[in-house]
Amino acid sequence: MLIVGERINTSTKRIAQAVETGDAALIAKVAREQVTAGADFVDVNAGTFLEKEVDYLPWLVETVQDALDVPLCLDSPNPEALIKALRCHKGEPMINSISLEEDRFRNLLPVVTSRPCKVVALCMAQTSMPTTADERIAVASELIERLTKAGIALDKIYVDPLAQPVSVDVKMGSAVLQAIAEIMKRFPGVNTICGLSNISYGLPARRLVNRSFLTLALAHGLTAAILDPTDTRLVATLLATQMLLGRDEYCSN
Amino acid sequence: MLIVGERINTSTKRIAQAVETGDAALIAKVAREQVTAGADFVDVNAGTFLEKEVDYLPWLVETVQDALDVPLCLDSPNPEALIKALRCHKGEPMINSISLEEDRFRNLLPVVTSRPCKVVALCMAQTSMPTTADERIAVASELIERLTKAGIALDKIYVDPLAQPVSVDVKMGSAVLQAIAEIMKRFPGVNTICGLSNISYGLPARRLVNRSFLTLALAHGLTAAILDPTDTRLVATLLATQMLLGRDEYCSN
Repeated sequence: MLIVGERINTSTKRIAQAVETGDAALIAKVAREQVTAGADFVDVNAGTFLEKEVDYLPWLVETVQDALDVPLCLDSPNPEALIKALRCHKGEPMINSISLEEDRFRNLLPVVTSRPCKVVALCMAQTSMPTTADERIAVASELIERLTKAGIALDKIYVDPLAQPVSVDVKMGSAVLQAIAEIMKRFPGVNTICGLSNISYGLPARRLVNRSFLTLALAHGLTAAILDPTDTRLVATLLATQMLLGRDEYCSN
Repeated sequence: MLIVGERINTSTKRIAQAVETGDAALIAKVAREQVTAGADFVDVNAGTFLEKEVDYLPWLVETVQDALDVPLCLDSPNPEALIKALRCHKGEPMINSISLEEDRFRNLLPVVTSRPCKVVALCMAQTSMPTTADERIAVASELIERLTKAGIALDKIYVDPLAQPVSVDVKMGSAVLQAIAEIMKRFPGVNTICGLSNISYGLPARRLVNRSFLTLALAHGLTAAILDPTDTRLVATLLATQMLLGRDEYCSN
């Protein structure tokens, strides 16, 4: 299980302030907490700043990697911000995310093929958000085909099935889970990744719902997750689930 | 999801004392708490008393049903205790459990065919405990065949895959889960039931492990569980999982 720490995101007020004021110490601290808690990658997202993202995203990369030897998940649909952020990234990054939206695909393909990296392939098509499992599988299949044709190895691709709120559509949870299982079955070696928190949007007890969804997603084959590794109850659920699925050889985690 | 409340069991000191001293009020209270919390059936088990079980089990039936209009799960391998308990049971009970152990099967078949009831079919063979999923499926298949031949409808049968501690065998969790999924697939209409707590025996954070296992078992098709319905975190996990699996039409539970 690959864990991407989600906490450096300017949609959080504290992170937005730290980015605006250049508070490197706070950013380094949040990154360190996540790596200490088990994050394999640290997500950096400055998307709320729009035009300033092209400066803020590279600054986040430098700030985190000055403090820690950890690869980052560069979380932006903006090719310019990604290119600048990639220039200062050391090691093999994860780029989050390419999709089937034509402009986005065309703009990002040169970026993700420009150097070795992991690529998040988001199940978003040109015209509409997917609702059913079949729609997600269709978008994933086309993304995988196009990306592998462009030379990206299957095991570098992380398909994100785009979890949407189950409060909006009661079938959304099972649609995402089915999509994960089917994508993992059709493309052996590919990865699947999921940001958990969308699924519980608008519901009470969101953290509980996220924990249950993580357990279900793991059972359906999920291999990576964008989550808060300092949420000890969430991580405990992850470890218990991996053990129950026979993926913790000595029940030692 | 059918919930069987597990708390009236003489392996608990408080319950054992209540049974020995004839404290009907305490037994009624524990039963009522479970029914209020959502139990569909109340399990009664006086197995620790051995010879006295033949008196204590019927007493438990009368005591609970004098206080509450609820069907009981009669939890004993002792045909004599079951027959006496059935005589005073009102409504359609659940009998827990018949197995492939030859003596047990032969002694209990006349009991479970003597009146309409739900039957727990435990995946225990004559010679050994099952370890793999395939062994469980084989025992389940034979039990289902023999029971339906004897006239018991498929939807009255609750197959218990016999969860064993994952601390003893790291593959035990996935073996039980696979068995549940395969039994539900091969015998459409049959039920599966599980006592959760065995799976976590010998491990830390048992309640967490039980919660994760319940989520996984539900995803694999489990239709009934023997659990503590007054464990609010466990029940919250159950409700969140049912919602995420699309089984809670308006996300209202």
